[in-house]
Amino acid sequence: MSDYSNFMFEITKRDPKSRARLGRLKTPHGTIETPNYIFCGTKATVKNMSPAQLKEARSDIILSNTYHLMVQPGCELVEQMGGLHKFMGWDGPMLTDSGGFQVFSLGEGTMANEIKGRSNKGYDNKSLLSISEEGCSFKSYVDGRKINLTPELSMKYQRQIGADLIMQFDECTPYHVDKDYTARSMEMSIRWGDRCLTEFNAHDDGAQALYGIVQGGVYPDLRRFSSEYTKDRNFFGTAIGGCLGGSDEEMYEVVASCAPYIHLNRPVHFLGIGRIKDVFTFVRLGIDTFDCVIPTRLARHGAAYIKGEPRETINLKNARYRTDESPLDERVDIPASCNFSKAYIHHLLKANELLASQILSQHNIATINMLMREVRQAIANDSLDNLEREWLPKRL
Amino acid sequence: MSDYSNFMFEITKRDPKSRARLGRLKTPHGTIETPNYIFCGTKATVKNMSPAQLKEARSDIILSNTYHLMVQPGCELVEQMGGLHKFMGWDGPMLTDSGGFQVFSLGEGTMANEIKGRSNKGYDNKSLLSISEEGCSFKSYVDGRKINLTPELSMKYQRQIGADLIMQFDECTPYHVDKDYTARSMEMSIRWGDRCLTEFNAHDDGAQALYGIVQGGVYPDLRRFSSEYTKDRNFFGTAIGGCLGGSDEEMYEVVASCAPYIHLNRPVHFLGIGRIKDVFTFVRLGIDTFDCVIPTRLARHGAAYIKGEPRETINLKNARYRTDESPLDERVDIPASCNFSKAYIHHLLKANELLASQILSQHNIATINMLMREVRQAIANDSLDNLEREWLPKRL
Repeated sequence: MSDYSNFMFEITKRDPKSRARLGRLKTPHGTIETPNYIFCGTKATVKNMSPAQLKEARSDIILSNTYHLMVQPGCELVEQMGGLHKFMGWDGPMLTDSGGFQVFSLGEGTMANEIKGRSNKGYDNKSLLSISEEGCSFKSYVDGRKINLTPELSMKYQRQIGADLIMQFDECTPYHVDKDYTARSMEMSIRWGDRCLTEFNAHDDGAQALYGIVQGGVYPDLRRFSSEYTKDRNFFGTAIGGCLGGSDEEMYEVVASCAPYIHLNRPVHFLGIGRIKDVFTFVRLGIDTFDCVIPTRLARHGAAYIKGEPRETINLKNARYRTDESPLDERVDIPASCNFSKAYIHHLLKANELLASQILSQHNIATINMLMREVRQAIANDSLDNLEREWLPKRL
Repeated sequence: MSDYSNFMFEITKRDPKSRARLGRLKTPHGTIETPNYIFCGTKATVKNMSPAQLKEARSDIILSNTYHLMVQPGCELVEQMGGLHKFMGWDGPMLTDSGGFQVFSLGEGTMANEIKGRSNKGYDNKSLLSISEEGCSFKSYVDGRKINLTPELSMKYQRQIGADLIMQFDECTPYHVDKDYTARSMEMSIRWGDRCLTEFNAHDDGAQALYGIVQGGVYPDLRRFSSEYTKDRNFFGTAIGGCLGGSDEEMYEVVASCAPYIHLNRPVHFLGIGRIKDVFTFVRLGIDTFDCVIPTRLARHGAAYIKGEPRETINLKNARYRTDESPLDERVDIPASCNFSKAYIHHLLKANELLASQILSQHNIATINMLMREVRQAIANDSLDNLEREWLPKRL
């Protein structure tokens, strides 16, 4: 059984008014301060960002998606190239998901809607060929070939990729399914979690640490059961996954129903969630790390995070920026944020020029990293409420 | 009449065996060594490259296209934003074309084929509404509105943009037209050149220097006439434009038919031409500066320039690079060329990831800049033939 001796999670301060905490998460590729934000390098690259640009934006940790790497270029190739750190040129801490989320998703991006309750189409996923106790199979979106994924294979693929922090394989249940289905699914995810632990321990060489995933949909008793399961097993960390309901309130209730029952001293990761308001809400429920594609996806659509903007972002495509000579945000100390006028970025967007996505992606990443530094400082100073008002003033 | 006192072109060495020369071209935004290469920032950006990335690749000078800026965001807006240098954040020397080339082109990119004799479709350009002695009008590709362009307006728009080196307005004749049409067109370009000079002188504040353009199609006597025209007028530099024939041999003949008659002591720019073999061929005919979209366009299609590669480039999409752990080219001293394996770039291209275009664009620009530095060194050392064999060994 792994002792995770190359890893450590140390809580250095607990907020007296909430579950928020400051921590230090040590991995073989470096130590990060928590709370922190994990940027998505889905296909072995954060879109249009080089590792040097990620570092310039003061990013500490990134993730990559096992599902996408399985399909292209293949996890075996990543291993042959020396692992993902070397392949993509990122030498800092890294996380991979298990592949489960995408397998069960209804095509790209749709499962995210489902989990956040923005759709009720449910399972009509043609790329998903079968689910059984053994695992599942799906069709490659690149060449249509059938690909199997089981708990054991997920561990193998994540080992080949070589990220520091890895996830158990789980079934992700959609919003519309009933409690019975959700319960049976959660139980299977638990059995899959145990198979992941067995497989992980059999090959453990100290390079990776495994997270268990809390499932259970929107049902507090299932969430409690699943949380206690993860606590009882030898996982290094806990992740919160699956269906989170249809509103901010429901999402809050789901996480609140896990919080008292998950392991108090292990790092907690919130899968796929990461608006600015989510960071403030869920840090207070004890979340240590977030990940979400939203900072770079919004960037590609012309939106820039601005501290103090009630809607979180401004849309540079808006005609009001056509002659705006001010830079994005001089408080964010990188050239992308300080050296280009909004008018110029507006022009680049109008002209469909890729430099816009480069500038806005780096700005958004740097802004979120500034947010996380300030959140950590605020937890240290017991001033999280004040900081939230600075970032998200009441909308007029 | 302008004395171009803020500009200077000084020839520091002439090759004893050819018309090749070393020069220093001084502009209000800095001095460049020649021969040199001007990278295309068509719509106020070299595609997916920030000014910092251009500098890291050791670029000395860029150009932007008046036609594209007229259409989006408009030259008046560029002026209002402080000129193009400030708008796009490039503080080095800059050139603009007159807008003529694109107006007369058959949709994007097609005129380039026409000029290089790769098509004989001729004038069926629906966006071109009319040509007359006064000038021409065309339809905006963005919103369909009618836009006029005359010699006087081209000077005005180029003044608003504010590049250091600007071009006279000319008519670009296609390959298939006969000598009579070409002669009449060249004569009109000469009258337009005179109107450009008048307009330029009326507003000259020392910030810009005007190039005359040699036209005359593939007809040596017309080329001679047009060359002598540019020599006789108070242009700062000479550009070679228009139809260059259907083969490398014809292109050579066209430039060779201008070379003896253009001003010996003025900088000579070759419009829109710039493969590696063109650089070696036309430096020997006295070309001082080249421009072409090819380095960044090839990059977006997965091709990397490699010194010593007989075909000039390798195509990273090729399956042979799937497991190639070597970097693009360690002789090119930037992270893009040294820090990523060909296998990784192959993966990025297969996955349609934008980082590939960023890496390959910067690599190609840096490689061409290395080529130009070595060409200058070779002229200094009388070793241009040897250098050409190093860059372009005989194809097996």
